[in-house]
Amino acid sequence: MIYLDNAATTKPDVRAFELAGVYATEKFYNPSALYKEGFALQSELKKARSALLSKVADETAFELVFTSCGTESDNQAIFSFARRGNAVTTEGEHSAVLSPFAELKNRGIAQPRYAPLQKDGRVDVEKLLALVDDKTSFVSVMHVNNEVGAINDINAIAKLVKQKNPRVIFHSDGVQAYGKIPFRLGKEIDLYSISAHKIGGLKGVGALIKRKALTLPAYLIGGGQEAGRRSGTENTFGIMQFVYAAENKFASLKEDATRLTAYREKLWSLLDKEVYTRLSSEDGTPYILSVSAVGLRGEILLHMANDQGLIVGTGSACSSNAKTRFSRVILACGYDEKTADGTLRLSFSPETTEEEIENAACILNAIGRDLKKRMK
Amino acid sequence: MIYLDNAATTKPDVRAFELAGVYATEKFYNPSALYKEGFALQSELKKARSALLSKVADETAFELVFTSCGTESDNQAIFSFARRGNAVTTEGEHSAVLSPFAELKNRGIAQPRYAPLQKDGRVDVEKLLALVDDKTSFVSVMHVNNEVGAINDINAIAKLVKQKNPRVIFHSDGVQAYGKIPFRLGKEIDLYSISAHKIGGLKGVGALIKRKALTLPAYLIGGGQEAGRRSGTENTFGIMQFVYAAENKFASLKEDATRLTAYREKLWSLLDKEVYTRLSSEDGTPYILSVSAVGLRGEILLHMANDQGLIVGTGSACSSNAKTRFSRVILACGYDEKTADGTLRLSFSPETTEEEIENAACILNAIGRDLKKRMK
Repeated sequence: MIYLDNAATTKPDVRAFELAGVYATEKFYNPSALYKEGFALQSELKKARSALLSKVADETAFELVFTSCGTESDNQAIFSFARRGNAVTTEGEHSAVLSPFAELKNRGIAQPRYAPLQKDGRVDVEKLLALVDDKTSFVSVMHVNNEVGAINDINAIAKLVKQKNPRVIFHSDGVQAYGKIPFRLGKEIDLYSISAHKIGGLKGVGALIKRKALTLPAYLIGGGQEAGRRSGTENTFGIMQFVYAAENKFASLKEDATRLTAYREKLWSLLDKEVYTRLSSEDGTPYILSVSAVGLRGEILLHMANDQGLIVGTGSACSSNAKTRFSRVILACGYDEKTADGTLRLSFSPETTEEEIENAACILNAIGRDLKKRMK
Repeated sequence: MIYLDNAATTKPDVRAFELAGVYATEKFYNPSALYKEGFALQSELKKARSALLSKVADETAFELVFTSCGTESDNQAIFSFARRGNAVTTEGEHSAVLSPFAELKNRGIAQPRYAPLQKDGRVDVEKLLALVDDKTSFVSVMHVNNEVGAINDINAIAKLVKQKNPRVIFHSDGVQAYGKIPFRLGKEIDLYSISAHKIGGLKGVGALIKRKALTLPAYLIGGGQEAGRRSGTENTFGIMQFVYAAENKFASLKEDATRLTAYREKLWSLLDKEVYTRLSSEDGTPYILSVSAVGLRGEILLHMANDQGLIVGTGSACSSNAKTRFSRVILACGYDEKTADGTLRLSFSPETTEEEIENAACILNAIGRDLKKRMK
């Protein structure tokens, strides 16, 4: 089985799972408990926050709040700060941002505005800036696009946005970036969402990184955990497994990125250009190659690949719950419906091998040619 | 080490953890993925919902939505349905209910009303009913009180509430009841919150059981998982570990309850009545014995016990984040501040042994007498 759907979820890091095991056995206590075993866990959680935060941010300026997933982080950021006037985002966002933005309108909280994408999947920065005005309370621009892998220069964008309106709260969904591409949070970024299961962590763990000076209201309200910013007993086992997995990923982040860029290009070079058109640009994330078998149905190819032992995606796994057949992100890049319909997302992890890349290309070429022949 | 703080959290079920391991290794896929491995997980999640739901409810009338914790379940229930007029709850609730109720007032959504408790910790049903009127949109009454263990007859209460106003949505926080006391959801209950980590599951997993006929809006909005009712990639490993742990607990639920009732009474019989006053009533949950060393500080006793290898609570672990020194629940039962200040919560699990009960009594008597002597 060759697994090239790592942007949907990654195989949990086995070693991290084993190391974290102690938090499901001996150290199972409630971190809010007053006895020393509880206090000890609070102090371990503090170190866990620091370990994850320090990888991308200056700890004197930022802090980290654990959540249950990237979706919760995005929801908390948006519903906490998009409170008036208008809120600006992009047409390339994950549904964890787009759906709350639609709710801002439904609930009459703020007027949502959507900046268009360029062909390569990055937001059109000039058009984004044109949407920002005196009444803009919140701007959200994803870091790495989850469908085509385009990288937005969020530090530069945040700076430009704040030059136009310094009162804007700037958020970025960093779920496909954290632990994958080299990056430090710039001083104009206020909020940044991350998720464990995209980098060898378990599902059910995420975090929202926030500027310290910013008061973050709780979205889950109750016992006052996470310094009152996120109630609910802390998922210690999941959090510690995330820390171990992240340490592992960050230790070889640059080498992995270099190697996977080469694999991505090798995969593209091996694919039959009579069948596949490339959608991802070369300066996108090393972790995603999006292609389209224009004129064929991506979903049929996905199932054909599946039968051959190759797992690929057609776009966001989360969108599979949606009613629409075509990826709105691919359409937003300016491609037609035929291109959107033929899209396959091939996404990698540091565990992906060169041999898997070669075999995947063989399978993709064979099924693409086969389906094309049958469609005639 | 004797652990008698199982109401705060339980030691995860080791066998359940091992059985669920496959969902962190081979079956790590995203359950929303379109390939057969993803579909297979969707079908396993469906079975998981059914396994947990069928233990307490008729599956033709109820369904189950996975969440990240009891707090999220309570928040979703309250913010979804306490939308107008007034909302009624009790003074004995967990902060996961009380804090959102306070927010209903802060945000001007609905007027919160609080029914007082009886001395044994159960809600005063007549006074609760007196608070329900034509404008009541929502009523929340916890099933088992997490501090003193009092059991509210929520089926009977829900019936009386609906006789008075059939349009009320009735919710109950069942976190301390599910998997511990025999119970089936009656037809007047609309929503019921449960949590994994109180019965051998992991932290970070909960569920909201809902009446099928009731449309539940999502609280976390995004990819549309859980049939649009809770977005965020499903925590498959945590969910399956919960299922295995619950199966184990429900298999011996009645025998465990009978044995723990005997242990609870034995513990009480062994405690020095010159030091300790009993707060929990005999018809409360077998899993909690709350006592007060009136005139002494519970927190000091907790630390003294801790030094002797005995772990106990003083009340809700979640309340340790609160600023108030005294348990509001104990005060709401009508006890004075001295009694509230001396409170120790001794809470059990099916793994608790008779020997541990005997040793715990010895330690509690020794430290209680010691502190009393020193206080003179």
